[in-house]
Amino acid sequence: MMNFLELVNNRQSVRVYDTARAVEPEKLERCIEALRLAPSACNAQPWKLVAVTDPNLKTLVAEAATTKWLGQNLFVNQAPLLVVLVRESPNITSKLGTVLKDKPYTIIDVGIATAHFCLQATEEGLGTCIIGWFNESAVKKLLGIPKNKRAELIIAVGYPAKPDIRKKIRKPVEEICSYNKY
Amino acid sequence: MMNFLELVNNRQSVRVYDTARAVEPEKLERCIEALRLAPSACNAQPWKLVAVTDPNLKTLVAEAATTKWLGQNLFVNQAPLLVVLVRESPNITSKLGTVLKDKPYTIIDVGIATAHFCLQATEEGLGTCIIGWFNESAVKKLLGIPKNKRAELIIAVGYPAKPDIRKKIRKPVEEICSYNKY
Repeated sequence: MMNFLELVNNRQSVRVYDTARAVEPEKLERCIEALRLAPSACNAQPWKLVAVTDPNLKTLVAEAATTKWLGQNLFVNQAPLLVVLVRESPNITSKLGTVLKDKPYTIIDVGIATAHFCLQATEEGLGTCIIGWFNESAVKKLLGIPKNKRAELIIAVGYPAKPDIRKKIRKPVEEICSYNKY
Repeated sequence: MMNFLELVNNRQSVRVYDTARAVEPEKLERCIEALRLAPSACNAQPWKLVAVTDPNLKTLVAEAATTKWLGQNLFVNQAPLLVVLVRESPNITSKLGTVLKDKPYTIIDVGIATAHFCLQATEEGLGTCIIGWFNESAVKKLLGIPKNKRAELIIAVGYPAKPDIRKKIRKPVEEICSYNKY
């Protein structure tokens, strides 16, 4: 078992998947459970997942996430599973806060939930890639997501083709943290 | 050691702190490290933390997070440590995506980073409470945060006064997940 910092270190964006290996349903269910238990402003839980497992549908969703002429996200259809994260309306307390405090609580909530999902996937030995750049209206049409909802992210999920954990490139701690003064 | 689902289950909003017990600097440092390694759109890492450890300053920040006449967040100054999460400007690629795709990537990133911080705190035996409702301009003034930056969240950190883990109230899985169709 990994401690949390090891888990965080092992989570990385995986863009090469083992196409011969499917994601076991019980592993996906535990990822969903980790997301389900995530905190949210006023406990609004403003999220819904659509797991795309049907191969033909997945190809179409992957195409909507790929910009061929830019060579961008060409790997997406390799992943055996795509999970689309829909942001739902906040409850009334969370909405009030968003208006009064100009704070987009439901978007922060979606970020927290995404982290929970991907970290559980890492614990399961799965690789993930969080994709925020895709043709949202095409994805919504393909999955029957209502027009007034936002499909915020697609999470690609599958077994990594290579076991290597890359070294993370991050700002030094001094640059992101200070004490008692910005 | 806890597995990730146990960690997720043990993370809860703590609103009663052991006021006699400080947060060890090395524990805070590991929480910051977990946050530092979080993923972000285009690896922009659009965050900065201000850890408020000075007791007088902390009292003033806590006051800015308390709405006395509403009885709201009265517990904040009990926490021995407050961490203010500032959202920084995205890098150029992340900014381009935000404009072209109407996706507030840096806000999602702040959510992911917050989850990392709070889960590491849980592993350290610390309690946290994510506070999104506070007088932002007052907090910015107190900590010297530039006017053009957003102080998105305050995380209260400290040892919980009680060890109980409450049962989480969440939507059932059927309500937040579907397959191949919204």
